[in-house]
Amino acid sequence: MKIALDAMGGDFAPAVTVAGAIEAVQEYDLEVVLVGNKDRLEAELKGKKYPAAKISLHHASEVVEMHESPSLALRRKKDSSIRKAIEMVKNGDADAVVSAGHSGIAMAASLVILGKLPNVERPAIATLMPSLKGFFILLDVGATVDCKAENLVQFAHMGNAYTKAIFGQKSPRIALLSIGEEDSKGNEVTKEALKLLKGSSLNFIGNIEGREIFEGNAEVVVCDGFTGNIVLKVSEGLAEAIMKTLRKEINDAPAGKLGYLLIKPALKKFKKRTDYSEYGGAPLLGINGTCIISHGRSSSRAIKHAIKVAGEMASHRVHQKIAESLGID
Amino acid sequence: MKIALDAMGGDFAPAVTVAGAIEAVQEYDLEVVLVGNKDRLEAELKGKKYPAAKISLHHASEVVEMHESPSLALRRKKDSSIRKAIEMVKNGDADAVVSAGHSGIAMAASLVILGKLPNVERPAIATLMPSLKGFFILLDVGATVDCKAENLVQFAHMGNAYTKAIFGQKSPRIALLSIGEEDSKGNEVTKEALKLLKGSSLNFIGNIEGREIFEGNAEVVVCDGFTGNIVLKVSEGLAEAIMKTLRKEINDAPAGKLGYLLIKPALKKFKKRTDYSEYGGAPLLGINGTCIISHGRSSSRAIKHAIKVAGEMASHRVHQKIAESLGID
Repeated sequence: MKIALDAMGGDFAPAVTVAGAIEAVQEYDLEVVLVGNKDRLEAELKGKKYPAAKISLHHASEVVEMHESPSLALRRKKDSSIRKAIEMVKNGDADAVVSAGHSGIAMAASLVILGKLPNVERPAIATLMPSLKGFFILLDVGATVDCKAENLVQFAHMGNAYTKAIFGQKSPRIALLSIGEEDSKGNEVTKEALKLLKGSSLNFIGNIEGREIFEGNAEVVVCDGFTGNIVLKVSEGLAEAIMKTLRKEINDAPAGKLGYLLIKPALKKFKKRTDYSEYGGAPLLGINGTCIISHGRSSSRAIKHAIKVAGEMASHRVHQKIAESLGID
Repeated sequence: MKIALDAMGGDFAPAVTVAGAIEAVQEYDLEVVLVGNKDRLEAELKGKKYPAAKISLHHASEVVEMHESPSLALRRKKDSSIRKAIEMVKNGDADAVVSAGHSGIAMAASLVILGKLPNVERPAIATLMPSLKGFFILLDVGATVDCKAENLVQFAHMGNAYTKAIFGQKSPRIALLSIGEEDSKGNEVTKEALKLLKGSSLNFIGNIEGREIFEGNAEVVVCDGFTGNIVLKVSEGLAEAIMKTLRKEINDAPAGKLGYLLIKPALKKFKKRTDYSEYGGAPLLGINGTCIISHGRSSSRAIKHAIKVAGEMASHRVHQKIAESLGID
């Protein structure tokens, strides 16, 4: 598999993207094409040890900045690193694309250049979230902000196909995020989606409440992109706030410092379990190709994992499986 | 102030509601009317020490169970404890009502019996959430699931009047929960609400992301009841999951048990800071009277606090202040 990496995308690019690419090719049976300013990328690679045959460069003169409007950037910056990387997938020069840059432009460019899959009305970003039993997939977390019931049903199918292909789950339990378990609970869109999902071929277990998602009783949790994005970010913000407060309370307490030293290995293990960089990136599902969107603050470790996920998605032909599953139901 | 308590409402009623009422009258300058089955309440009070002049009974023969449909229960159970308690407020026999029972029926009965305030289109439940700097108000968390932009604007005014009256904040910072700080981010409803809020007299600071709400830079965070309910429950569920995982990791680690013992006082302090029972209940704003909705799992301590909040809401005439503020803007 050959992965096109938007080497200029992300808060710490290109240092971190290049480092992530090197880690990835050292660890996995993959090739990476670094897409971006050739001079800067060559400077970044200089003096580093890596299997040269597995990393190549593809020049792109422009970079889309975080504050830019996706639609404007798409029209004006024809030679941006993200656009060029996606075009490589379109032209068959790469099997998948990874970007930690502006997620709005990655989505817009994927939609315009790669296009949607047949039968897909709107795309969805699927993210992994930790649960007490392992993890679950939450989608959409921001690709489609205003959803109709039919969009949510499609997201359920996409999450199903993705989870089966990548995590080898035979019949993932799919739940609809809502404000009560009863069928009568929800907003107009989720109530309609609930009816449709009950009549589908999926292993649909009904509504799930915000409180229950971390219990790990559903492998796929479906919601609109507005709600999902807020759930994802509230979770990140709360986890950080809890750890910050806890650390302060512990350090302020008598003997707390010693206690903190003793529990530090456990805290580290916990952090690792909940760290997004362990997962690396979130696939944009519903488009005709493989595109992994990574956190702007991605570490090289997160980039490495995103490259790995991109390779797996492409080799399992997840987008084709999604197209097939949507054609049937 | 005289508070009508739905003594039959909640998972541990009437034991916990009666205990909470006793704690409240012992601690605060308030009277409580226990509304519910007289025999059961008398049995519960028997042998307990409390200032008898500050607790009275009001008989109601029926109880609305958690699984009942609010609209059916409202029509059929004319003698339910929640209905009778709200009627006392309507008739001027009590200044406020507190219920830890079925929140749907408490809302429906409040709307039907007390009615909405002039200028209010839809009510909102306002809950306190802990932040790194103290706490903030989140509303709506479930009263109005499908919102128009105008509803969100009214919620902002209601949260503003409530925060000013009860927490003495002169000019609370109001933010709109969304998926990005930029004006262009959000769903159709929040984008429209953002425009309206910018033109209002409120101290409106714009969009706030899920990640930022716990930073404590806004005193009031506004959203629709679907999103707010999910944010509230995701936060509860995640905080529990984190503490559970952390405790396990700590106990499994070498010397972890000793470390745990040393940090236990800090954990307790932390738990107290984030415990909903410290706050006690969430007011239903926008109705013509004072109604506090408490968690079904409320402890006597939570009931005590809810009774206190009810007394404060009534004595500060918060509902009249909301009506006034909505009449101006």
